[in-house]
Amino acid sequence: MPSDAIPYHAPADANRFAGIDRPTLVVDRARAERNIARMAAKASASGVRFRPHFKTHNSVEVGEWFRGAGATAITVSSVEHALTFADAGWDDITIAFPLVTRAIPAIRDLAARVRLGVLVEGPEGAGALAAAESSMDVWVDVDAGYGRSGVRWDDATRLAEIGAALAQSPQHRLRGVLTHAGNTYHAPDHATIEAIWADTAVRLAAARDLLAASTGATGLEISVGDTPGCAVMPRLTGVDEVRPGNFVFFDLQQLALDVCTEDDLALAIACPIVGVYPARGEAVIHGGSVQLSLDTAPGPGDGRNFGRLAVVEPGGWRPLPAEDGFVRSLSQEHGVLRCSPDVLTQLRVGDLAFIISAHACLPANQIRDWLVI
Amino acid sequence: MPSDAIPYHAPADANRFAGIDRPTLVVDRARAERNIARMAAKASASGVRFRPHFKTHNSVEVGEWFRGAGATAITVSSVEHALTFADAGWDDITIAFPLVTRAIPAIRDLAARVRLGVLVEGPEGAGALAAAESSMDVWVDVDAGYGRSGVRWDDATRLAEIGAALAQSPQHRLRGVLTHAGNTYHAPDHATIEAIWADTAVRLAAARDLLAASTGATGLEISVGDTPGCAVMPRLTGVDEVRPGNFVFFDLQQLALDVCTEDDLALAIACPIVGVYPARGEAVIHGGSVQLSLDTAPGPGDGRNFGRLAVVEPGGWRPLPAEDGFVRSLSQEHGVLRCSPDVLTQLRVGDLAFIISAHACLPANQIRDWLVI
Repeated sequence: MPSDAIPYHAPADANRFAGIDRPTLVVDRARAERNIARMAAKASASGVRFRPHFKTHNSVEVGEWFRGAGATAITVSSVEHALTFADAGWDDITIAFPLVTRAIPAIRDLAARVRLGVLVEGPEGAGALAAAESSMDVWVDVDAGYGRSGVRWDDATRLAEIGAALAQSPQHRLRGVLTHAGNTYHAPDHATIEAIWADTAVRLAAARDLLAASTGATGLEISVGDTPGCAVMPRLTGVDEVRPGNFVFFDLQQLALDVCTEDDLALAIACPIVGVYPARGEAVIHGGSVQLSLDTAPGPGDGRNFGRLAVVEPGGWRPLPAEDGFVRSLSQEHGVLRCSPDVLTQLRVGDLAFIISAHACLPANQIRDWLVI
Repeated sequence: MPSDAIPYHAPADANRFAGIDRPTLVVDRARAERNIARMAAKASASGVRFRPHFKTHNSVEVGEWFRGAGATAITVSSVEHALTFADAGWDDITIAFPLVTRAIPAIRDLAARVRLGVLVEGPEGAGALAAAESSMDVWVDVDAGYGRSGVRWDDATRLAEIGAALAQSPQHRLRGVLTHAGNTYHAPDHATIEAIWADTAVRLAAARDLLAASTGATGLEISVGDTPGCAVMPRLTGVDEVRPGNFVFFDLQQLALDVCTEDDLALAIACPIVGVYPARGEAVIHGGSVQLSLDTAPGPGDGRNFGRLAVVEPGGWRPLPAEDGFVRSLSQEHGVLRCSPDVLTQLRVGDLAFIISAHACLPANQIRDWLVI
């Protein structure tokens, strides 16, 4: 049974957590709302549209906190999520994932209900939109150096082919060029993140101009959306729209990039402790790859650090130094937590371990049990 | 739109897959039933109880195929899954995960409905069972060398403490000792897998005898349950019960261990192709870490091979040689498929790529859309 006196996993106000009997997302609402307000204010001060990505939280409830901060437009990464948020009353939604042409019937129906933005990465997708009679906003997915999806920023031929294919669908509105500069997630320092931002903006402007020249379209916009870039840049320059997502919760990866502080960490995973092994210096928690995901963050454990143990304090949780408690391995439902002797002696079977995850997005999508505090 | 003439991703009977517009699990029922029948027959010929682990498929429908092969007892890894299968009519269920003491109210209620087995790894869990008045089967979780959870097989003191704690709960039945020899997943060859099996059986027998000596219990059993061991051993010797799970589908990890053949691979993930990039030698699929998981298998890609492209043929799918098509990276919804030029020229935006996953268990748990063929 839980003991209430252990600061590492049983806060003073332990009753809040008394009902938790399996891995549960715990969201610190005050921190999340502060993260939202800060990013919304930066977008406003920069004169850019704030279209936050909802793939991180994928929660109608958290979505309402964004509405409270003035957000009216959102980003999602699948048709399914777009439907969820359309049902929740959002009426300006971009699906920032290359068009799934097989899903055009569902996309068409959705576009009849809300202002829908879709992404095309080549002439095939652009041509397939002719089959959708409902009007949509169309963004061109541009690869500005990350190398995941999209037309290369300088590929004038393909940009012209996309423009020509879209000309077959006058019911749609060409809005501009869009990218996810995910290469910032691997940047060694702020200067590199800022340099990636600047390069990305220049490359997207080049792609925008090529697209404008080939189509004759005017007023084309630039949309970008990675949390490291949006968090680090003092001003969101050279773009018209930003779509960060992870910043609502942040996580160990963002902490390692120094784009958030420990006080910004708004998500923890409460995991029941099911075994304590002093001879090994380890405890076992109910919280495995199904819940925490196999995403890792820099730190101990041969680069395989799946999460860190947090202290629950009156002002919110705080991750312990990694050497005092980190998740060194995961199987489907088990997590193995390596701890310093001082910390381990305070852990008890039946208590909750609060884990800050390496990357918030997957746990937030994989765990169904939520608790907002 | 899907083209029907491409053998790599559009089978002759393409209409079966026409409705797929997002990542979807496709199960080859004939192969899965053959895998089940083979393992059930081996357990029967070996004179051991077959208690298959349902955590891999976690599907009531697949469960019925096991019933068809004569299974009457099952294993799960969480209270939630136990409830799912109790509702589906299974009445002999072991939760092969260390007792989550916080979940005792739910466990007690479940034990009133079905014959329930639980796992204790120390005196805390064993003592906590006193609070559950419904009778349960109790297994002692033994660490026979894997190093994840459980009392060490030779720790006579702790085994005696567990026995003493259980003596406070005469309503429960001490059934025996149980382990998951997950170290077979990292074995370099069959001889090593067989050696781990033999060592595990000897160590569990030692733990069983220590437990019997300290408690006076008779008829204590030995339960083991890893797919590599159960698949490789010609006869399941030295144990009373086996609990393999992964073998129902197998996957690239099992193929790399040479414990299954390509013809045994019963699960593929059908992923819409959303981009083809000849200059990079890559295609992008809708199928990311949310669906495929970040589990990896040996192969190209610096050891990060998240899946292999399969050919769909009349007799079932067959993975291509890894150098012809493997998933080299994943983000939340995107998968990047690196292909040989010959294969890449046959991929089209809008077709389906069939991916054999590195490890079947996580995709099978994370993807909600199923198609049985």
